[in-house]
Amino acid sequence: MPHTAFYISDGTAITAEVIGHATLSQYPIEIEHITSPFIETKELALQLCDHINRCYKTTGNRPFVFFTFVEQEFKKLIKQTECICFDVLSPFTKDISSVLEMKPTPKLHRTHSINLESYDYRIGAMNYALANDDGQTTKHYDDADVILVGVSRSGKTPTSLYLALQYGIKAANYPFVEDDMEHLSLSAELNNNKKRIFGLTIDPARLAAIRHERYANSKYASIRQCRMELREVERMYKKYKIPFINTTHFSVEEISAKVISEMGLERRKY
Amino acid sequence: MPHTAFYISDGTAITAEVIGHATLSQYPIEIEHITSPFIETKELALQLCDHINRCYKTTGNRPFVFFTFVEQEFKKLIKQTECICFDVLSPFTKDISSVLEMKPTPKLHRTHSINLESYDYRIGAMNYALANDDGQTTKHYDDADVILVGVSRSGKTPTSLYLALQYGIKAANYPFVEDDMEHLSLSAELNNNKKRIFGLTIDPARLAAIRHERYANSKYASIRQCRMELREVERMYKKYKIPFINTTHFSVEEISAKVISEMGLERRKY
Repeated sequence: MPHTAFYISDGTAITAEVIGHATLSQYPIEIEHITSPFIETKELALQLCDHINRCYKTTGNRPFVFFTFVEQEFKKLIKQTECICFDVLSPFTKDISSVLEMKPTPKLHRTHSINLESYDYRIGAMNYALANDDGQTTKHYDDADVILVGVSRSGKTPTSLYLALQYGIKAANYPFVEDDMEHLSLSAELNNNKKRIFGLTIDPARLAAIRHERYANSKYASIRQCRMELREVERMYKKYKIPFINTTHFSVEEISAKVISEMGLERRKY
Repeated sequence: MPHTAFYISDGTAITAEVIGHATLSQYPIEIEHITSPFIETKELALQLCDHINRCYKTTGNRPFVFFTFVEQEFKKLIKQTECICFDVLSPFTKDISSVLEMKPTPKLHRTHSINLESYDYRIGAMNYALANDDGQTTKHYDDADVILVGVSRSGKTPTSLYLALQYGIKAANYPFVEDDMEHLSLSAELNNNKKRIFGLTIDPARLAAIRHERYANSKYASIRQCRMELREVERMYKKYKIPFINTTHFSVEEISAKVISEMGLERRKY
């Protein structure tokens, strides 16, 4: 008996998705996930109600439905279907309204919509990350919120871009190559911005696997080379007291949260 | 009387942040947002309790606290502070547990942690987006989930990277330049992959402002040039029946959700 989950909104449905996914991931069941954003007309809402009812008929299980809606009429329509229904923000607004002595005023596209100030930060940070990726240039480190360092393929680029797009944080990144490591020394540009540097490391076997996908059977992907580079880079972090984490078992969300936390960076999100 | 909101977890705190922010954004109050991820020891939990209580003393308002915790002991500690406290997933697990006749089994780092299969998708998609950004190459369009097209600075690159990092969707992007537009024709590579193409457009005044930040007072940033390019590109979309949206008032989350929805793409997230 397969289960179905719907994430529904008249906006992006990201809030409903995040809550629904976090909740359902606690149960060991197989789920088909269906995201339905921008349900902005009665016609679309009615089509969706049909879809939910059909799912119930087909699977024999009432689908889990997580929604955020500004439009009250659409809430009512969805609630009448054969589903287990969660209006995901309502458990919180009740208490908050009573403390603040004011009613919530839901507005369409408020949560994940454009806010020009923080949006400009994010796009600016993304352009910065792209221009300062992979040590292409080391001239703009004074503008960086953080400079990620590490050997090739240790997770620097995805983390830089995630920090930019989610939080408007300007992250440059610099790949340590053999030359840096032979001398166990930081370049002048890095040394001048030492307090902005954060190091990534990774287990040699995982690094070798990642590099192997890119250049199979190369020296670059050999476990021997990976071990050597990682040993040297970790020695460098210790010598210069550079804070660092091992990314092997972390997602880009987790690496980013740790970088923000350890470096005391500001989220430019709200 | 300023308000404070804490988003707390023994993981990334992303779930608590998303729910808390979506809830509080419905009230017209000023809020200082504090995210505290990776509260994994009793010592950290106690420090945080102090911080919450100090906030209450300083502001006179009990802080809003949104948390997800696997560790039950930490929940209890937080609940004893002077705060308005929300265990953000509990309103949903009660009903779901009763329907499924099983208890939730919260696991640390389950929601925003590494899932090797979908993670590889995301990193692969990011590498694809970077390699196929800005028309650098047009040779790999057969591998694209979607090819975003539009004039320079209409939002193609941020959308491509967001689709990759959030959803593991492979998005190439191609900037229409005057040459394409003069002939009002698609290149052979684009024409062969016409069903993957999605167009972006934007209001001329907003485009001119964005371009002006990059190259002030250039022909490229002139309203006349922007108007001309956008008129031509929209004509091309209509001629080739390319679906498109105007990004002027949309965030990268909204543009991405619309692209996914209109092109029927699969989210490789779970």
